[in-house]
Amino acid sequence: MVRITKKTSQTIGLPPGTLFHVGERKAESVRVTIIDYDQANVEEKEVKSVDECFPFKDKPSVTWINVDGLHDLEVIEKIGTAFGLHPLILEGIANTEQRPKMEDYEQHIFVVLKMLYTEKEDDEVVAEQVSLVFGSNFVISFQERTGDVFEQIRERIRNAKGRIRKMGSDYLAYSLIDAIVDNYFIVLEKLGDKVEILEEGLLPTPKPETLPATQGLKRALISLRRSVWPLREVISGFERGDSALIKKPTRVYLRDVYDHTIQVIDTIEALRDMVSSILDIYLSSISNRMNEVMKVLTIIATIFIPLTFIAGIYGMNFEYMPELKWRYSYAIIWIVIIGVGVLMLSYFRRKRWL
Amino acid sequence: MVRITKKTSQTIGLPPGTLFHVGERKAESVRVTIIDYDQANVEEKEVKSVDECFPFKDKPSVTWINVDGLHDLEVIEKIGTAFGLHPLILEGIANTEQRPKMEDYEQHIFVVLKMLYTEKEDDEVVAEQVSLVFGSNFVISFQERTGDVFEQIRERIRNAKGRIRKMGSDYLAYSLIDAIVDNYFIVLEKLGDKVEILEEGLLPTPKPETLPATQGLKRALISLRRSVWPLREVISGFERGDSALIKKPTRVYLRDVYDHTIQVIDTIEALRDMVSSILDIYLSSISNRMNEVMKVLTIIATIFIPLTFIAGIYGMNFEYMPELKWRYSYAIIWIVIIGVGVLMLSYFRRKRWL
Amino acid sequence: MVRITKKTSQTIGLPPGTLFHVGERKAESVRVTIIDYDQANVEEKEVKSVDECFPFKDKPSVTWINVDGLHDLEVIEKIGTAFGLHPLILEGIANTEQRPKMEDYEQHIFVVLKMLYTEKEDDEVVAEQVSLVFGSNFVISFQERTGDVFEQIRERIRNAKGRIRKMGSDYLAYSLIDAIVDNYFIVLEKLGDKVEILEEGLLPTPKPETLPATQGLKRALISLRRSVWPLREVISGFERGDSALIKKPTRVYLRDVYDHTIQVIDTIEALRDMVSSILDIYLSSISNRMNEVMKVLTIIATIFIPLTFIAGIYGMNFEYMPELKWRYSYAIIWIVIIGVGVLMLSYFRRKRWL
Amino acid sequence: MVRITKKTSQTIGLPPGTLFHVGERKAESVRVTIIDYDQANVEEKEVKSVDECFPFKDKPSVTWINVDGLHDLEVIEKIGTAFGLHPLILEGIANTEQRPKMEDYEQHIFVVLKMLYTEKEDDEVVAEQVSLVFGSNFVISFQERTGDVFEQIRERIRNAKGRIRKMGSDYLAYSLIDAIVDNYFIVLEKLGDKVEILEEGLLPTPKPETLPATQGLKRALISLRRSVWPLREVISGFERGDSALIKKPTRVYLRDVYDHTIQVIDTIEALRDMVSSILDIYLSSISNRMNEVMKVLTIIATIFIPLTFIAGIYGMNFEYMPELKWRYSYAIIWIVIIGVGVLMLSYFRRKRWL
Amino acid sequence: MVRITKKTSQTIGLPPGTLFHVGERKAESVRVTIIDYDQANVEEKEVKSVDECFPFKDKPSVTWINVDGLHDLEVIEKIGTAFGLHPLILEGIANTEQRPKMEDYEQHIFVVLKMLYTEKEDDEVVAEQVSLVFGSNFVISFQERTGDVFEQIRERIRNAKGRIRKMGSDYLAYSLIDAIVDNYFIVLEKLGDKVEILEEGLLPTPKPETLPATQGLKRALISLRRSVWPLREVISGFERGDSALIKKPTRVYLRDVYDHTIQVIDTIEALRDMVSSILDIYLSSISNRMNEVMKVLTIIATIFIPLTFIAGIYGMNFEYMPELKWRYSYAIIWIVIIGVGVLMLSYFRRKRWL
Repeated sequence: MVRITKKTSQTIGLPPGTLFHVGERKAESVRVTIIDYDQANVEEKEVKSVDECFPFKDKPSVTWINVDGLHDLEVIEKIGTAFGLHPLILEGIANTEQRPKMEDYEQHIFVVLKMLYTEKEDDEVVAEQVSLVFGSNFVISFQERTGDVFEQIRERIRNAKGRIRKMGSDYLAYSLIDAIVDNYFIVLEKLGDKVEILEEGLLPTPKPETLPATQGLKRALISLRRSVWPLREVISGFERGDSALIKKPTRVYLRDVYDHTIQVIDTIEALRDMVSSILDIYLSSISNRMNEVMKVLTIIATIFIPLTFIAGIYGMNFEYMPELKWRYSYAIIWIVIIGVGVLMLSYFRRKRWL
Repeated sequence: MVRITKKTSQTIGLPPGTLFHVGERKAESVRVTIIDYDQANVEEKEVKSVDECFPFKDKPSVTWINVDGLHDLEVIEKIGTAFGLHPLILEGIANTEQRPKMEDYEQHIFVVLKMLYTEKEDDEVVAEQVSLVFGSNFVISFQERTGDVFEQIRERIRNAKGRIRKMGSDYLAYSLIDAIVDNYFIVLEKLGDKVEILEEGLLPTPKPETLPATQGLKRALISLRRSVWPLREVISGFERGDSALIKKPTRVYLRDVYDHTIQVIDTIEALRDMVSSILDIYLSSISNRMNEVMKVLTIIATIFIPLTFIAGIYGMNFEYMPELKWRYSYAIIWIVIIGVGVLMLSYFRRKRWL
Repeated sequence: MVRITKKTSQTIGLPPGTLFHVGERKAESVRVTIIDYDQANVEEKEVKSVDECFPFKDKPSVTWINVDGLHDLEVIEKIGTAFGLHPLILEGIANTEQRPKMEDYEQHIFVVLKMLYTEKEDDEVVAEQVSLVFGSNFVISFQERTGDVFEQIRERIRNAKGRIRKMGSDYLAYSLIDAIVDNYFIVLEKLGDKVEILEEGLLPTPKPETLPATQGLKRALISLRRSVWPLREVISGFERGDSALIKKPTRVYLRDVYDHTIQVIDTIEALRDMVSSILDIYLSSISNRMNEVMKVLTIIATIFIPLTFIAGIYGMNFEYMPELKWRYSYAIIWIVIIGVGVLMLSYFRRKRWL
Repeated sequence: MVRITKKTSQTIGLPPGTLFHVGERKAESVRVTIIDYDQANVEEKEVKSVDECFPFKDKPSVTWINVDGLHDLEVIEKIGTAFGLHPLILEGIANTEQRPKMEDYEQHIFVVLKMLYTEKEDDEVVAEQVSLVFGSNFVISFQERTGDVFEQIRERIRNAKGRIRKMGSDYLAYSLIDAIVDNYFIVLEKLGDKVEILEEGLLPTPKPETLPATQGLKRALISLRRSVWPLREVISGFERGDSALIKKPTRVYLRDVYDHTIQVIDTIEALRDMVSSILDIYLSSISNRMNEVMKVLTIIATIFIPLTFIAGIYGMNFEYMPELKWRYSYAIIWIVIIGVGVLMLSYFRRKRWL
Repeated sequence: MVRITKKTSQTIGLPPGTLFHVGERKAESVRVTIIDYDQANVEEKEVKSVDECFPFKDKPSVTWINVDGLHDLEVIEKIGTAFGLHPLILEGIANTEQRPKMEDYEQHIFVVLKMLYTEKEDDEVVAEQVSLVFGSNFVISFQERTGDVFEQIRERIRNAKGRIRKMGSDYLAYSLIDAIVDNYFIVLEKLGDKVEILEEGLLPTPKPETLPATQGLKRALISLRRSVWPLREVISGFERGDSALIKKPTRVYLRDVYDHTIQVIDTIEALRDMVSSILDIYLSSISNRMNEVMKVLTIIATIFIPLTFIAGIYGMNFEYMPELKWRYSYAIIWIVIIGVGVLMLSYFRRKRWL
């Protein structure tokens, strides 16, 4: 989060629409692949220069250009010029610190989404920005690095699985969004597992690791929520919007993604509830244990303090202490001491302090 | 909740509309029953093959097909083809981890609901998905296992009790939804009993079992809420929607189910309030008891420590301690000790620490 | 609240519109009274059989039928048939565990309200259901037991006080609702008094009774809120609704009741704020007192423990302890002991721990 | 707040529109002043009988009648009759326990506002009700006692300062509302000063007076909020309403008052935040101090308890204790005692407990 | 915040539209600069008298008048007269304690914004008011002191960088707003750094400085939020408003600023979450440390108290204590003492209290 504020400040003062890559350079080199398909044919190739894409622009078939790596601004600019994209779209693609959003530029629709990963070693949820621009016969997707979430869709296009080959660019855009939202469930599953492990770890005795772990999960869930929450509006705007680019059959599918998004949000909220309830149990069991310790220890101390006083009395050196000379004083003192101890213990027990 | 995230991830990457059964296989075999009725006649049978249902499709009478068990995707697919259902409806039926929702596909309306059970042995509230699809003259209901909540409705159809035989498929669909919502009250009743028992258990002394029990109830109420809350929108969308499938007389009844749903939500919120108030009382009475213990014990210790000091003084072995030789020293010391003790006790009492 | 869930479950499985009395049988026998009035005449009588009411139905004068006691379903049914009420209205009248609501059935409007009482002996706020049905020239009110909140309205009708005799059935219905809402202020007043007493009781020393008392008030306010909150919507729906049954001059008065309802809700919220602030003060003053006790007691113990150590030193029996033989050892020891005590006290005081 | 509930209950059972003065009798006698002005002339007088006001009614000039003191219901009633006010307006004027509201009666608009004062001696914020009724050429204002907030407006009218003489009765009504809202800033300023003093008082050591003081401020802010919050709706209803009584140039000014009201609400919320943050700091510094006390005291006790044990050992009277006879035992014991003490202190210091 | 209430009260009682400078006099003298440009030419100068600006008013080129320093009311008044501004606009410019707002006066639009600075030495976020008025061919900006946030825009105008020279006054106004919003990211970045430092400072041991530091950050974020939150509405009102002054191409850019504002708000909320989570960790680690101290110390005390009692027993001076004379008593006592100590330690360890 702190990271966000840092990077964004680099673009301050630039005129709007200026291309400036905000974000880590995650890919070595920019990789552009192209798939062009209609119901009958599929053509797929990885292009060396982005200019190879432009001939597809005027074909009626659906063209999907996927760009991995955003640091080569020239590529973005060339695409922008070729497809007539608004400068703010290009700025939005290059600046990877955007909120998910959907913008209707009449000729094309611009969508910003977050792809989520959990890093192997820790709880951190990493968000990568995916931008989509689509017009009547093309979809251009921009990713920060080479990913594989879209591979399944390529597979479906190649094998004409499902309806994808029969439908237009809007359905392809929907499929990409759907793939990203589906991927959220995997992240949620991992976090859900961690929550479960934390919860089970509470049972015998609370462990001090629980506190930072819940804090980590809490933060992961907050950042997840920031990525997913705006999506709700994005997709509902999509579904209800009146753009001619989105045809009616696709709207039904968008409603389905919308339902998935709501389900993701619901699950995030439920996980948040569970994490904060783990925290509550942890804190109250810590304080219960502490109380128990203090109680038993204080009871021991309390029993022996009066007894020590009795012993102290007969340790005094007065010359005239008649008891000191009596034959059975010592035995009596022991009886008194044991009696007082037993009485106190039974009093504590009756009061249910033990 | 964690369970949800696990199962759903299995379908990731499949093209939308793909049939894939998400959920436990709760029924041994798929069981299909059919009731066909109009004001004059009722025909009821359990069919071996789902194909036996299709002739009823074109009859003007109301046909209710009930499918128990969702793991045989072929059955769902055949019904889908016969009744012309959208692939997303079929996917929604097979995937039992959906949020309650209502979708209007013009020719038919698709409703997803949650049937709730409390398992005998523990607090866990188990939700089973019930999907309804209804058109102008049929209702198809899908359940995860053979249940008996709908038995009462079958009874009413057989005996022409109430208005059910006089009205159309929309009224049948309403009746099924009503039966499910009515069933929530039984779950609420059981949870309410548990809350009451917990509350009564607080009175003499707080018990350590209270903490996990309230946590269990809290979680049961959260999961209940997740099932019921979306229902509010579902039924209100139903009632206010402009679908031609729902006739005006039925809308009045839907308003009634809506009121029941609000009442269920109200009761859930009230139970949540009560549970969190039980937790508050529990925690503050625990800490009150602890405080009481500590106070009494500390007071005992505090009285005897100064007295032990006095005894310690006259236990010193100095050669020149004139008091040691005085005749009444020992008696005086006892008077001093008792005096100091009484003074401290009365001071404590005046300060209302005892 | 728990009570609600219990009773409602008895009706589960009955067809909608089935008459079933849910609630305690609060009245011995059903009592039906009738007042028929227009600007010129008033006729008032208690009827033996409900059939005596029906002749009034077709007279242009306003007829107010009041039914005390709901357990005789035959009475409700007869009225329903005579006035052509929808079965759901009759079910709603008999089931006393409803949420306040307003339903427009075109020919008549059905209103469910809660009359509130505080039981003499405890804090419990008891809600009794009052149902009103009114058409163009009649109002029928159903109460669980014989009450006296409506007596003032009867008085006004008899004496032609105010405008009531000049206006129609909608104004009568408004007057009944107004009487019920006005009655809430009496309940609020009693709760307000209790809050004030609790608050004053905090001042010298917190009392242990405060905790259960605030919990009781909290619950009373929650249940009150549940009865009053839906009223807001009910009355605003009334006022803004387009039913031809409610004439324009009456709408102005409904706006007034609406304002009163908002004021009741405001006062409930303010009382809730006060109760939770009483709880905060109580808890923090309890813990302050505890801290004070612990502090003073620990200070006493701390001063005497080092002193007892000094005394212990010279209670040792070593043969070669030169100090034991010195002439002024004992006096010096006393000086040391007093000096150490004074030093510690002044240190504590300087640190403001005393 | 409790006060509210008490007074309002007196009117229960009266027919709506009945005049009944609810509130303390704050003014000795009712005082009626009148200012009549147009762009050219001003006429100002204090009238003995309210009847003297009525001739102004039919003049085209703007007439402002101000009534201080509400207990003489005859005055209110006469004005009501003369200006044709709805009975509910008159009831609303006499009942001073209303929520701020705005009601459009077509012929005139009725506004209820709260004037706020801080009493000199304590934190209590006192609210006085001000009612305004205005028609096309008159404004009638009702106050509970003779105030001076409106004096500035009288001054402006007399001296034709600003635009007031050039504009109609709606601008006068706006000016009165503006004067009341402006006055809130003075109350806020006083409360702000108190918050600042409280905050500065936290710095060296927390004082026990902080707790009741924050509670007092909290309550003052709650009551302020109750008075101001509804104003938001009132003025926005005013500004957006379509009443012909409010002309377009005046609407711009109403937007300005609206902004002020939002600013008042903002400031109240900010003060509430500050007060609760003061409370948090207070409570955590109290508990920090307590912890510190307990820690140091416990450390002292802990060091001396083992040392006292050592001394106790050599205070035993066994005949065969070889150490007692050794030459350097006593010196060694001192070394051991000092050594143990130093070791424990350094351990504590290393663990950073000191 | 307290400051706000203080200054505003000075204007109370003045007629609306009265010019009165509320705020500190931040600039030495009022400085007026003017830039007049169209696609071909730029003219820039600093004027001595504000009258020099007025000739530009009727030129078709875009005129940007920037006023630094608000205490010379004559300047504001002259501009107001020359450009025909509503008195409330002038009042709003002079009163620097306004909430951000946007007001459409048809002929011109008035915008109030807050420029934010962090003072070098402390956490305090300082807000300076910037007012913009723009019409079809001019923008007038008012600042409290000479700033440099707008320098970049001047640079762009001079060098015809970006589109600014090709577009109208609405684009210039947008650019100024954009510069201010961009500047918020710098403030957020500084606060983000502080949050990060605080968080890292928690790790080894909590420091007492954390508490006031989090409080300072909390307050800075609250005040930031107050400045930014209303902006959301301002800019969305701008974008969606139907003013003819804002042309369609500019609206696209306004949507972009809107997104930035949402992002600023998001980041503020995230920082608030982090600060309150730092506070939680701080408080719970403080109390954990305290618990640990208390536990270890109490254990030490508890072990030695029973042992001291045993020693006390054999320090008694009874004549008939047979053990005193036995040969191995002393050795046995040591064994008993060590045995009891070991037993207690192992008991504590088994109970996991150590």
